[in-house]
Amino acid sequence: MSFMKIYHIALSAAMSLCAIAATAQVKEDFVSSPNNQPGKEYPMVNSERCVRVKVKAPEAQSVKLDIGGVKYDLVKDAEGFWTGESAPQDEGFHYYQLNIDGADVPDPSSLYYYGASRWGSGIDVPAADQDFYAVKNVPQGQMREIYYWSEVNQAMRHCFVYTPADYDQNKDKRYPVLYLQHGGGENEYGWPQQGHTAQIMDNLIAEGKAVPFIIVMENGSWTMPRPAAGAPAMQRPQGQRPPQGQGQRPQGGRPQGGGFGMPANWADGFANTLIKDVIPMIDSRFRTIADKEHRAMAGLSMGGMQTKAITVAHPEVFSNLGIFSGGTITVDDTKNNPEFAKDLKLVFVSFGSRELENRVAGFGDGTDPRQETEALAASGVNAHFYVSPGTAHEWQSWRRALYQFAQLLFK
Amino acid sequence: MSFMKIYHIALSAAMSLCAIAATAQVKEDFVSSPNNQPGKEYPMVNSERCVRVKVKAPEAQSVKLDIGGVKYDLVKDAEGFWTGESAPQDEGFHYYQLNIDGADVPDPSSLYYYGASRWGSGIDVPAADQDFYAVKNVPQGQMREIYYWSEVNQAMRHCFVYTPADYDQNKDKRYPVLYLQHGGGENEYGWPQQGHTAQIMDNLIAEGKAVPFIIVMENGSWTMPRPAAGAPAMQRPQGQRPPQGQGQRPQGGRPQGGGFGMPANWADGFANTLIKDVIPMIDSRFRTIADKEHRAMAGLSMGGMQTKAITVAHPEVFSNLGIFSGGTITVDDTKNNPEFAKDLKLVFVSFGSRELENRVAGFGDGTDPRQETEALAASGVNAHFYVSPGTAHEWQSWRRALYQFAQLLFK
Repeated sequence: MSFMKIYHIALSAAMSLCAIAATAQVKEDFVSSPNNQPGKEYPMVNSERCVRVKVKAPEAQSVKLDIGGVKYDLVKDAEGFWTGESAPQDEGFHYYQLNIDGADVPDPSSLYYYGASRWGSGIDVPAADQDFYAVKNVPQGQMREIYYWSEVNQAMRHCFVYTPADYDQNKDKRYPVLYLQHGGGENEYGWPQQGHTAQIMDNLIAEGKAVPFIIVMENGSWTMPRPAAGAPAMQRPQGQRPPQGQGQRPQGGRPQGGGFGMPANWADGFANTLIKDVIPMIDSRFRTIADKEHRAMAGLSMGGMQTKAITVAHPEVFSNLGIFSGGTITVDDTKNNPEFAKDLKLVFVSFGSRELENRVAGFGDGTDPRQETEALAASGVNAHFYVSPGTAHEWQSWRRALYQFAQLLFK
Repeated sequence: MSFMKIYHIALSAAMSLCAIAATAQVKEDFVSSPNNQPGKEYPMVNSERCVRVKVKAPEAQSVKLDIGGVKYDLVKDAEGFWTGESAPQDEGFHYYQLNIDGADVPDPSSLYYYGASRWGSGIDVPAADQDFYAVKNVPQGQMREIYYWSEVNQAMRHCFVYTPADYDQNKDKRYPVLYLQHGGGENEYGWPQQGHTAQIMDNLIAEGKAVPFIIVMENGSWTMPRPAAGAPAMQRPQGQRPPQGQGQRPQGGRPQGGGFGMPANWADGFANTLIKDVIPMIDSRFRTIADKEHRAMAGLSMGGMQTKAITVAHPEVFSNLGIFSGGTITVDDTKNNPEFAKDLKLVFVSFGSRELENRVAGFGDGTDPRQETEALAASGVNAHFYVSPGTAHEWQSWRRALYQFAQLLFK
């Protein structure tokens, strides 16, 4: 898949940059990370965007900081604390971990996030534009955690639903809905936590830059495993904080043997869940405007590819879409899918500048998403292209993409 | 404080039990924990309630499992994996960690919870009665994450609000409210995550055993630190997943130097926040029945002590209270506080059987909470006492306490 290729090329580019920077003197203006556990001084970040960690491991022989695909050796002091820093990182959010005598473990001083197929450490490098996702004293929406029964999966599933600030005040008002998906190795916690979805939307709505709408965040990676006797823990969606007790299978419900009517393909698999279960559930539990003009799908990376696959295949469901670092919509896509093209209201395509440069330089598939999107716009589609400056295939690109996309949506 | 004394005695008792059991042969019927990260086989629990962990640390000299106040040595295999198990644990939830060559770190295979003043590993030992907090296919409430401006703290604060399943269906119905507090070293994530508050309530309401009510979970440990220049990370509540960007202080808001009108005492400090900020915010954002007869406070351990202090001091605000492993209400309490006693609708007091035995045996303050509660009931107060069988000062006691308390409340 081309996005993986892009990702690895972007990673290699970042590594080279770090290796050069690491040889220079480190600037001693480190401040605590906003992602630290309460009361913890470390990890810290300096004005050159280097990350410094500190961990107590008095009997260890080797401790490393593993961030951005590079492992940095830490140095031990007399009290048994290991300290060291990375080369400069991009602005925004990064997953990382420590390696203690060969054991990959979370940093006990950081908060934890789900990405790279694990719950582990994350750190935010201060960004010049971080104000747009800060918690501010503006009218506040709500991030709601929801369980629901999925017929497709024959199991209880779990999602988050953002409702805008006025949702509970205007009891008869109905709202458009955006279905917003995470990337590969991530889950439904990505947009609420790393993505700061609620803060981005609250701030945009408060400034009058976006119309209020509902956002639904589900787990697009889940494929139902074959149930093993006596192993309820295996029945929960990938990456999800599971319920305790009898696991997620409700009493009396029993999955049929393997398959559950879901194709092996992840995109089709999530399409069934989304179209047959999630959307009807949202339309019944929330005051939505339940038509395609007022329904959008967007996603990052794998979620962007799912967005394209699902919106093209279901023009009766969606008229608006956003693809963040996950491909493009071309003129051919509209020509080959007239039903999809017919009522298309909005197409939004975005990339981080670093990943885009690599793609256009031919390290990806060699196509130029900007040109493709401009051609699409020239063909009469309401198509927009956005590039996140100075970022790669990472969360700062996607926070910014949501910020831009939300200002165009449902207007 | 007597609860700390009880806690440490209970811990010592558990340690003795474990030490005896650890000498016996381990039963080989381990199954994966429901608190594992997705796709992880370990940690596992067997039918004797022993916890087995496995972690890769090829170059480590020593790896230990640290659970229930005891450190258990793990054994290394040829591939560099360390494995070993604890003595039997009580049914229910336990915090734990690994120690790798002297470094205390979370188990990279478990989900993470906030307790013992840190985000770290947790594991659920299957309980005979775990059905009451299982996710079931019943009408589902919502767990809502909320930010709000606190005048008392001159900062944005963060809480969770559970709304019952019919809240969004009956648009004109108003609901009673329970303010439910965590214990020391925990935060507002405790009841939603470890406590399974939403599942307990959804199941009780579906069975007709509880009336629907709203539950508010805030952070009772927070005292506002003096703001340090350039250190926005220090301005967030203890234990809270922080916002990124400019930290929690809204733009334009500037805390005055030290104090912020809050007494040093934690109970009074949270009283101000609760009474002046949280309750008015909840009454304005949610369809509450905003009188004392339809308002309750309850809490576990430190939260129970806060409940007593705040409800006794504010009889104009609360008529219902629950104290889980955090003290009692005595006949003297009502005699000395006639305003508090006058309209008292419900008093609920509970303990885990292990901590209660120690307290009554005189290792605590020597009083007998059951006798005190029975005396209170005999004096004419609607007072109830509950003992969680076979558990100590731990979450299984408090899940059960909520389950019992909720069936008595607002009826």
